Amino acid sequence: MQPEANNKPAVVLLSGGLDSSTCLALARERGFRCFALSFAYGQRHVQELAAARRVAQALGVERHLILELDLRPIGGSALTADIPVPKDRPVEDMSHGVPVTYVPARNTLFLSLAVAWAETLEATDIFIGVNALDYSGYPDCRPEFIAAFQEVANQGTRLGAELGGRFTIHTPLIRLSKAEIVAQGLRLGLDYGLTHSCYDPTPAGLACGRCDSCLLRRKGFAEAGSRDPLPYAE
Amino acid sequence: MQPEANNKPAVVLLSGGLDSSTCLALARERGFRCFALSFAYGQRHVQELAAARRVAQALGVERHLILELDLRPIGGSALTADIPVPKDRPVEDMSHGVPVTYVPARNTLFLSLAVAWAETLEATDIFIGVNALDYSGYPDCRPEFIAAFQEVANQGTRLGAELGGRFTIHTPLIRLSKAEIVAQGLRLGLDYGLTHSCYDPTPAGLACGRCDSCLLRRKGFAEAGSRDPLPYAE
Repeated sequence: MQPEANNKPAVVLLSGGLDSSTCLALARERGFRCFALSFAYGQRHVQELAAARRVAQALGVERHLILELDLRPIGGSALTADIPVPKDRPVEDMSHGVPVTYVPARNTLFLSLAVAWAETLEATDIFIGVNALDYSGYPDCRPEFIAAFQEVANQGTRLGAELGGRFTIHTPLIRLSKAEIVAQGLRLGLDYGLTHSCYDPTPAGLACGRCDSCLLRRKGFAEAGSRDPLPYAE
Repeated sequence: MQPEANNKPAVVLLSGGLDSSTCLALARERGFRCFALSFAYGQRHVQELAAARRVAQALGVERHLILELDLRPIGGSALTADIPVPKDRPVEDMSHGVPVTYVPARNTLFLSLAVAWAETLEATDIFIGVNALDYSGYPDCRPEFIAAFQEVANQGTRLGAELGGRFTIHTPLIRLSKAEIVAQGLRLGLDYGLTHSCYDPTPAGLACGRCDSCLLRRKGFAEAGSRDPLPYAE
């Protein structure tokens, strides 16, 4: 990757998964100085944070901040409460309704923290790897939500309301299929072996291969005509 | 206090200060079943959390949740970073510009967590004690911000986007002076001796009497013609 320099700072939400890692690679390609932000929120797949560290290092971010915010007391999701992660769902079903892996208001929360950090960095660019196509069940991955949040960022910060900054929430993946996302990352030389997508990894840390996230990822690689470098339990 | 029952659940943001405690008393008066939410965010005046506990207990909330979220790695505020808290500022100056005690995007963040909890409680009512009059320097206390955030709550949650819930962010104090806020609390029998407002308490936990928050509070009690039950260092 040879990023063009635009020298602007940007906060990039980075879970360590396929989408957010690709999103970071795209932000870098556009020449932003990237400040990666991850969260230890009590997710059962905490392995993703090790992946976020690997990806942040491989892509040369300016800084990688991991904030701790335990969402388990709030509950309401298979990712943070004692609710089973669904397995072997047909991919067609994933685009209907909100799945139990939905974490209440998660992207609102993560974007709030991204805006808070952006403000101290005097940055008005934020990248988030949401995707409305493959997995439309998450309400906080839709363009309407992103537009509403951008208004909140402009109204609710000193940088927006007093200093005249205009925030841009960049969503470079929002209209892409998983196969197109994989193709973008491969074009930019991203090593997907560094990433982690599984919601319910084995005790040894292997991807289960059967949760929604694994199934979508495998379908994406298959449709992109590429081999997923990750090993799977099944 | 004899609250009318409307039996609806509401999440009430409660710092333990004068405004949020009054806001809780008003939510109770309107008959809501109140779920109080506080944050340990690395604030230097962590004493306010003990006040929040006292107030939550005195006002009989259904539940009081204190979430931990250390904002110190983000910094940018005199309340969470090593920046001195201003003292002895004329009250007139407080309504111009954003003070150094502004915490980047704090209300966005706190409202995000309120919405997340509300979603798991199936509540669409949220109370926040913001005030745009006495202290207009905080961008995230203005009606424009609250309106923008309400849209985010409706767009970014399962409850709003899929189940047709309409969130209401109640701001019963937004147009009141500090004296009017005090008068409301006294009318409802709130014991302000339980609350804590100071940004920079002494090591023994006494209110300094000279930070913006203490000065506004003292002025409010004076104008309401009432005695502040709190002891002050100066």
